[in-house]
Amino acid sequence: MGKKIAVGVIGAGRIGKIHSENIRYFIPEARLKTVVDLCADKLSEWANGLGVEKLSSDPRAVLDDPEIEAVLICSSTDTHADLVMAAAEKGKHVFCEKPVDLTVAKVKRALAAVEKAGVKLQVGFNRRFDHNFRRVRELVKAGAVGEPQLVRISSRDPAPPPAEYVKVSGGIFLDMTIHDFDMARYLSGSEVVEVYAKGAVLVDPAIGKAGDVDTAVVTLTFASGAIGVIDNSRKAAYGYDQRVEVFGSKGSAAAANDTASTVQLSDEKGVQGDKPLYFFLERYKQAFVDEMKAFFEALNTDQAPPVTGKDGLAPVLIGLAAKRSLAEGRPVKISEIEG
Amino acid sequence: MGKKIAVGVIGAGRIGKIHSENIRYFIPEARLKTVVDLCADKLSEWANGLGVEKLSSDPRAVLDDPEIEAVLICSSTDTHADLVMAAAEKGKHVFCEKPVDLTVAKVKRALAAVEKAGVKLQVGFNRRFDHNFRRVRELVKAGAVGEPQLVRISSRDPAPPPAEYVKVSGGIFLDMTIHDFDMARYLSGSEVVEVYAKGAVLVDPAIGKAGDVDTAVVTLTFASGAIGVIDNSRKAAYGYDQRVEVFGSKGSAAAANDTASTVQLSDEKGVQGDKPLYFFLERYKQAFVDEMKAFFEALNTDQAPPVTGKDGLAPVLIGLAAKRSLAEGRPVKISEIEG
Amino acid sequence: MGKKIAVGVIGAGRIGKIHSENIRYFIPEARLKTVVDLCADKLSEWANGLGVEKLSSDPRAVLDDPEIEAVLICSSTDTHADLVMAAAEKGKHVFCEKPVDLTVAKVKRALAAVEKAGVKLQVGFNRRFDHNFRRVRELVKAGAVGEPQLVRISSRDPAPPPAEYVKVSGGIFLDMTIHDFDMARYLSGSEVVEVYAKGAVLVDPAIGKAGDVDTAVVTLTFASGAIGVIDNSRKAAYGYDQRVEVFGSKGSAAAANDTASTVQLSDEKGVQGDKPLYFFLERYKQAFVDEMKAFFEALNTDQAPPVTGKDGLAPVLIGLAAKRSLAEGRPVKISEIEG
Amino acid sequence: MGKKIAVGVIGAGRIGKIHSENIRYFIPEARLKTVVDLCADKLSEWANGLGVEKLSSDPRAVLDDPEIEAVLICSSTDTHADLVMAAAEKGKHVFCEKPVDLTVAKVKRALAAVEKAGVKLQVGFNRRFDHNFRRVRELVKAGAVGEPQLVRISSRDPAPPPAEYVKVSGGIFLDMTIHDFDMARYLSGSEVVEVYAKGAVLVDPAIGKAGDVDTAVVTLTFASGAIGVIDNSRKAAYGYDQRVEVFGSKGSAAAANDTASTVQLSDEKGVQGDKPLYFFLERYKQAFVDEMKAFFEALNTDQAPPVTGKDGLAPVLIGLAAKRSLAEGRPVKISEIEG
Repeated sequence: MGKKIAVGVIGAGRIGKIHSENIRYFIPEARLKTVVDLCADKLSEWANGLGVEKLSSDPRAVLDDPEIEAVLICSSTDTHADLVMAAAEKGKHVFCEKPVDLTVAKVKRALAAVEKAGVKLQVGFNRRFDHNFRRVRELVKAGAVGEPQLVRISSRDPAPPPAEYVKVSGGIFLDMTIHDFDMARYLSGSEVVEVYAKGAVLVDPAIGKAGDVDTAVVTLTFASGAIGVIDNSRKAAYGYDQRVEVFGSKGSAAAANDTASTVQLSDEKGVQGDKPLYFFLERYKQAFVDEMKAFFEALNTDQAPPVTGKDGLAPVLIGLAAKRSLAEGRPVKISEIEG
Repeated sequence: MGKKIAVGVIGAGRIGKIHSENIRYFIPEARLKTVVDLCADKLSEWANGLGVEKLSSDPRAVLDDPEIEAVLICSSTDTHADLVMAAAEKGKHVFCEKPVDLTVAKVKRALAAVEKAGVKLQVGFNRRFDHNFRRVRELVKAGAVGEPQLVRISSRDPAPPPAEYVKVSGGIFLDMTIHDFDMARYLSGSEVVEVYAKGAVLVDPAIGKAGDVDTAVVTLTFASGAIGVIDNSRKAAYGYDQRVEVFGSKGSAAAANDTASTVQLSDEKGVQGDKPLYFFLERYKQAFVDEMKAFFEALNTDQAPPVTGKDGLAPVLIGLAAKRSLAEGRPVKISEIEG
Repeated sequence: MGKKIAVGVIGAGRIGKIHSENIRYFIPEARLKTVVDLCADKLSEWANGLGVEKLSSDPRAVLDDPEIEAVLICSSTDTHADLVMAAAEKGKHVFCEKPVDLTVAKVKRALAAVEKAGVKLQVGFNRRFDHNFRRVRELVKAGAVGEPQLVRISSRDPAPPPAEYVKVSGGIFLDMTIHDFDMARYLSGSEVVEVYAKGAVLVDPAIGKAGDVDTAVVTLTFASGAIGVIDNSRKAAYGYDQRVEVFGSKGSAAAANDTASTVQLSDEKGVQGDKPLYFFLERYKQAFVDEMKAFFEALNTDQAPPVTGKDGLAPVLIGLAAKRSLAEGRPVKISEIEG
Repeated sequence: MGKKIAVGVIGAGRIGKIHSENIRYFIPEARLKTVVDLCADKLSEWANGLGVEKLSSDPRAVLDDPEIEAVLICSSTDTHADLVMAAAEKGKHVFCEKPVDLTVAKVKRALAAVEKAGVKLQVGFNRRFDHNFRRVRELVKAGAVGEPQLVRISSRDPAPPPAEYVKVSGGIFLDMTIHDFDMARYLSGSEVVEVYAKGAVLVDPAIGKAGDVDTAVVTLTFASGAIGVIDNSRKAAYGYDQRVEVFGSKGSAAAANDTASTVQLSDEKGVQGDKPLYFFLERYKQAFVDEMKAFFEALNTDQAPPVTGKDGLAPVLIGLAAKRSLAEGRPVKISEIEG
């Protein structure tokens, strides 16, 4: 093995920590050099335990370090695009958490900066690396289901976020469904051209007061002619529900939930099995690792990352179209947003 | 047991035969007196084997027979409403195959005739009697899933009908999805108030030429605020796909497909199980029996049948709304159709 | 269709009634002429409803009726062999419930009488006609699992029989496991040559006092070299547990239990499905029909029935060997019993 | 965190490497100081990558190092007992791979040395830490299945070992089934008092020539009165088959296999899912981690390890009893071996 890639992580909240730990434990070709966080002072024990070389509250500790080749942007959404641009201008490769930004203009500027700098950008759509969804995609790609005709995604969280968060989240379609929009493109291999969204407030009235919905059904039309449908809820009593199905001319590939065990208890009440894994940290644990592996593999082999800037933009467009669809009660074409 | 109820069956095609046989074998309180069919001359062997007392090509053999108390209308759709009215006027109870008619006006006239005559009418939405869907409904009714929030129905046929049939079928929403519209009402216990339909021709171009679609996703809005979604295909390579899910505040009840056996073959290729039962004759075999039992139970106990005239009208309204939604590319309220 | 086969049923307890009803409803080529039962006087309503032509308490009403071609022996076990012989001597074909007798000598005499008379004999091992087990057998026969190496059978009742019954039952191996011995031969296509039985009284001490066990594990050695294992319990809290697996050089075919529905309820407690169907009347409902169909098919086509006299003898031998194995604490060869 | 526990690993074959890596990545409270292996010279790259401080071909590099508190014995079986004794005499805690030895006398001497030295010993029955089996055990312990009555274990390898290995393995019961004997004790919470083993050579004649069997069914009698049954094959065409079931007075808890994904492909051939994970490295990946965690947890909290010396001895006794049972064709009591 040659020289290790020096990495800087900006933002060490929940997801920044996960990526840092995964790099430390599972990416031998990377060197976790610098971690930046606004609350850096509270992170020293964690950082020391992990062998982080430098801890700072200033992003420049990463951006201005010529040794650092790759930057992970895990800060709050409103800072993503600017940091992508800053890192790109410094010639650093970028892994950016989703979404790149909540506005099309800013996402496009960030992508343009990346393009201009000739660096690599991977966007954090971790679910593409989930073992189940990847298997469905492989089957679709191999032609096992024939030409895709219907794509079905059920995506339900175990518990709603606080209304405070909802207010700044950009709304369910840009905050939660955005993953499903990405999944729909990934599974079908086709672009979404039109969206119709139906939403309701059935989980928590506070979410309604915050101007959002907590339950939604979104119909997608793909460029290929296939139709997609996503159902979302902010609260599934039984935990994190993440299922997909691609139905095509030759058959159907469907992924069920993961569970903590395969055990079935049969008694006089019935036959009972485990609930789905509780939430994304449990369900996508390995996906987060594999996502990092794929990013560094792309850097090491000088190939395009598996989730590109274009993949970062498309779900934002779909999300904005869904938002407008809900507001106006009509199907909205992606071209209306893009224009 | 008292006197048996004399029954006349009008229309002895596939479904008329099934009902006749079920009455003969499983409804001891009924007497299969008369069967009417345009091709009565070709049915004598079948009718004799079944012990049918009289075989005729003239509906009056049933309608004018004062002994006959109950009429089963299994003829072509365009004759349903007139026969319902004729039978009702003669004071006979009616079991009518779905749909009662393809126009709202005629369904309403038929229902009015039934109302006026004070006879009972059951409409042939057989899937309500399916063991799986009934179980989901029982769980919903018992509160096991809490307040319903999402209703998901996948309904896919194993093979498309001939284009000739498609032309006179009223279109996929009135011919095929109509069952799912009924199911949505049945499972949720709530009325549908708005429909958005998206369709495509992905299975057979001839269906498109006949002015119909063969693939569809329909979003339903319920009076309760819940959202429903139906996906349809005229051709599932793996057979008849009939699944439902009701998701609510306390959990989710989901019915998977029935299979011919529970056997799993594990070999070097994978773990393989049976396909779903091929089509409705196999899947709903027992449902057709239970539907008849329920009809005669209603007659015997002088109670309202479990599927009423109102249940016959509602899916027609929803189907017409779906048709308009598809044509106009916008969500359509049921009140627009009804008005 | 030609002349119908006139049938006499001897013994109209639970199983005799089931066969009578199945003949009446599902075997159009048979005519249910005479039913004999010790309590015939209490059966007239049932018999009339079914259209039984003659009801008697004397077996000679069947045996001496020259019109009757086929006799179903559904009386108590101790009368089986004598009735088989009497019917055979009268030239009648025989369907006899299992076991033919609890002693080898008497089974052999009965088989000899059948042989001599040149009539057909089918023994009531209904489970061979179960859709799941038949599918496993088909896969084995088709070579899908390769050469069978292990045969696993779990067979557990939902509730133990009364101790009074246990006393006269011949013991668990001849009363309950006998079905599994037949299943082992059927699935493997090989004869059992040695048995080792381990038993315990864990369900009901009264069964122990009656000289029997209620829990057992039986190891079988097949002529082919394969090994089989059966586990039995007289009481499974979750209902009737009937599973089999054949494991071979190319893979494994395994049948799970049937359930009343495919519905899964997911809530905060877990994911819950139905228990297995309660008991043999529910689980083997269709198997009893198919068993009758096969019997009359054999008569109509003049072919050997699918369960022959030899198939009636073998499980008795295995059962007696198991009994001796349990008593003597050692493996017992079938040849020790047969000799 | 206080001072880290310095660890020495003796034997860096497949399993020694796994433990070393797990310690390095998942046991922050341990320090992987020294690795000993006969082929130490070929391991330097691996050891460097892992940050091993010292690599040696001489066990004394571990045994004589006063800083090393814990020794992992992962060398060949014939060296286990001597190394356990040597490490114990040096006052070191020991984790020893199974089996401690193939003879009762030597296991007992090793346990005595551990006892005398007052150090801790954990034996490497990794399957106790498998998420599925642990869940079954938890349910049993919590009383969910009531009093255990039947314990069923299916344990089948994907491919047979070379005949050369078979010759020195101690035979299938001490090499392969030994895990299942441990599992039977673990799941039931009861000691095995008698064994009856039936075996056959159905997979590979070379295994027969080496004096062993490759297919086996073993019946266990527990002190509690419950009965157990294990079926083994050295070759399952579909991969590693590891299932257990505990059946008791209140119900049954059963663990199915793990698969790489939950995806089902439905097409015209059937509904196909993944095979079980290929072999123990895949299936027990996390169990190996959790086993190490449990060992160091026991050291850190000064508690008895979850798998004790007694747990190391018992399966050897059962294995030897099984071997004798197979040889002599009779059930063998554990007391016959122990005496």
